[in-house]
Amino acid sequence: MKVFKNPSVAECNAILKRPYNNVDAIESTVIQIFDDVKRQGDNALKKYTAIFDGVDLNEFWVSPEDIEIASENVSPDLKDAMTLAKSNITKFHKSQSSEIKKIETSPGVICWSEQRGIERVGLYIPGGTAPLFSTVLMLAIPAKLAGCKEIILFTPPKADGSITNEILYAAKLCGVTKIVKLGGIQAIAAMTFGTASISKVNKIFGPGNQFVTVAKQLATKYNVAIDMPAGPSELLVYADKSANPIYVASDLLSQAEHGPDSQVVLVSPDCDLISEVKDQLQIQIKKLSRQKIAEKALSNSKLLWVESQEEAIQIINEYAPEHLIVCATNEIEVCEKITNAGSVFVGNFSPESAGDYASGTNHTLPTNGFSKSYSGVNLSAFQKSISFQKLSKEGLLNIGKSIELMAEAEGLMGHKNAVSLRLKDI
Amino acid sequence: MKVFKNPSVAECNAILKRPYNNVDAIESTVIQIFDDVKRQGDNALKKYTAIFDGVDLNEFWVSPEDIEIASENVSPDLKDAMTLAKSNITKFHKSQSSEIKKIETSPGVICWSEQRGIERVGLYIPGGTAPLFSTVLMLAIPAKLAGCKEIILFTPPKADGSITNEILYAAKLCGVTKIVKLGGIQAIAAMTFGTASISKVNKIFGPGNQFVTVAKQLATKYNVAIDMPAGPSELLVYADKSANPIYVASDLLSQAEHGPDSQVVLVSPDCDLISEVKDQLQIQIKKLSRQKIAEKALSNSKLLWVESQEEAIQIINEYAPEHLIVCATNEIEVCEKITNAGSVFVGNFSPESAGDYASGTNHTLPTNGFSKSYSGVNLSAFQKSISFQKLSKEGLLNIGKSIELMAEAEGLMGHKNAVSLRLKDI
Repeated sequence: MKVFKNPSVAECNAILKRPYNNVDAIESTVIQIFDDVKRQGDNALKKYTAIFDGVDLNEFWVSPEDIEIASENVSPDLKDAMTLAKSNITKFHKSQSSEIKKIETSPGVICWSEQRGIERVGLYIPGGTAPLFSTVLMLAIPAKLAGCKEIILFTPPKADGSITNEILYAAKLCGVTKIVKLGGIQAIAAMTFGTASISKVNKIFGPGNQFVTVAKQLATKYNVAIDMPAGPSELLVYADKSANPIYVASDLLSQAEHGPDSQVVLVSPDCDLISEVKDQLQIQIKKLSRQKIAEKALSNSKLLWVESQEEAIQIINEYAPEHLIVCATNEIEVCEKITNAGSVFVGNFSPESAGDYASGTNHTLPTNGFSKSYSGVNLSAFQKSISFQKLSKEGLLNIGKSIELMAEAEGLMGHKNAVSLRLKDI
Repeated sequence: MKVFKNPSVAECNAILKRPYNNVDAIESTVIQIFDDVKRQGDNALKKYTAIFDGVDLNEFWVSPEDIEIASENVSPDLKDAMTLAKSNITKFHKSQSSEIKKIETSPGVICWSEQRGIERVGLYIPGGTAPLFSTVLMLAIPAKLAGCKEIILFTPPKADGSITNEILYAAKLCGVTKIVKLGGIQAIAAMTFGTASISKVNKIFGPGNQFVTVAKQLATKYNVAIDMPAGPSELLVYADKSANPIYVASDLLSQAEHGPDSQVVLVSPDCDLISEVKDQLQIQIKKLSRQKIAEKALSNSKLLWVESQEEAIQIINEYAPEHLIVCATNEIEVCEKITNAGSVFVGNFSPESAGDYASGTNHTLPTNGFSKSYSGVNLSAFQKSISFQKLSKEGLLNIGKSIELMAEAEGLMGHKNAVSLRLKDI
């Protein structure tokens, strides 16, 4: 990892540029598979599952029996861990619900909002090297709390047609209503168009590789909402002399092991800390089972030695990290000044792993600078807000004249007339 | 308007099908203009403004002097009306802000969310037949309340290079920071890529024609967020015998005058009401200045005579109207059962015009069935939520073991190690 000394904010834009992926080549593949699924339905899903997952499926649904058997094969300890995580995730996401506040904006004019769960949501859980059952918890728990009626989980089958036990158990634990053995572009296409055996969803959630990301983007063209665009995972640590370099190095490595395209960044005003972290990285990386992946990720990653905290905060907000660890003597002040980040971990005993699994916050977060405009997944991502208004006669009397004037100025006499006719009767 | 008697929910899907617009032909134009603006910057913006708006501009920004002059030319009555509307919109949107709730999910594990305004937002205000200054209020007021630092309004210039006085005044009233004379695809492209004179935005808001809609969809591919996809405006009225047919007809017409592709629907269990509304439509439409537009819209529109309220509610939720008027003896019960709608107007004295201008709710709402997955514009549309967590030693001790177990089960030993190293020290 290279150390940069006192880079300007503009220089940081170049230094911290995310590895660029050209998705144009992928796009034509995605469009073709979407087209195929739209026309051929289940047959296309079977075809692509055979090609990409190497398995011929007669049935996409996971049976209740398979879920029961899987549950028996998850260790009691891991079940307890998931139960604790579920409890914390539930508490935090429940706290995001809002009460109905009826506001009298003018006398006799009452306005309020009510939240409704999105009826059918699709949760995408990647397969691949690690079975990410924790993402099942992060998506299904708020979906259930939000009142979504159908919570359908899509995940690619293994070559023997099965799904990892932990994913099935987590799905059952968190109230997933159906589990579909489908992955990749074909899964997103099935959620978008629906087929004879799979009904289309209103919104698609969850992480995935580049193919899944491009497919989710294409789904929005067909009127399906998505949680957010996704990119490789990333962590920025801001640490001053109050930080423990051993912990900082372990956090950077925990992020680096995600994938070779992960990006980890340390920003610090303390040059001693930077060199201690550098040494620790070398020591700790050797013990990792995913050492090679972490090494590749570290080669994309940067250590920034900054002159002042103010500069550091500017750099952080411009970079807009997915995960941000803040270890600083004045941590509260720093946190207040953070405007762009997905999730923030405060102090020496708040590793990113805590939020990845069990603190209660959501780990589905905006990467790639998207935290400038997107929130991470939370309760409201699974709901939509409906506004209501009820005017009494008095209410319409109070604001009717203003409506008439504004409607007339916009040349919309029908709008004016709807008020005038009523005012005549009051 | 055709009357349909007792259609099933499935039949209603066909009856209430929105007029389909094939946007494929538009798409290539949008891609080309985007490409041009990306490469040629301001020169491309000038070129397309000359082509589409018929005016050669040297400068895209509206000067403070022009805004002052425009303000002097808005009538005091209209200014008062806008001030009342602003007050109500402010009250309602302010009520949507949430306090910071610190939740202790496990002892020593504190999680909370904080909202931050999106830094740079672009508000698109269409030109065209009616100068929609009310949309300026609906977008700029919550943007300002949300804490957005740059609120940049884009609107197409008239052939003489000017902007309607009312739009400039509303922008000034509501805290817009800059006004740009740019419309159509080129405006959305400028917001997406930025040019020498215009900086790119983080999120694009506002309605527009098909070109603008397709351009906004394309913008998301370049990592710019949008409020929601848009389609032609629509109103569904649910009315029983408690409704006044004169009012109902005026509401249907107020929506019909928006554009020839607007859709208006009446659903009622009362066949007498339906025929009275039908008669009233014929009488009232003759008085409208936009009669021809309204007539075209009515030709797309439907009167549904249903057998029961239950059926009506199913039809409404399946259609997911942008605007819904509920005039029913048991209005509270009906409202509780509405799961998909943008904004709901309750009772005989709550015309849609009230929400369009001055009740306080937002009029930027999901059309085309998007209320199944999208909310209308509200305060949180201009913010993103950052989650925070702080664990004490005790906190990590309480959940650390669970994190270790889950990380290990996912094969992420670096994640586990970040916890283990800390637990050793506690």
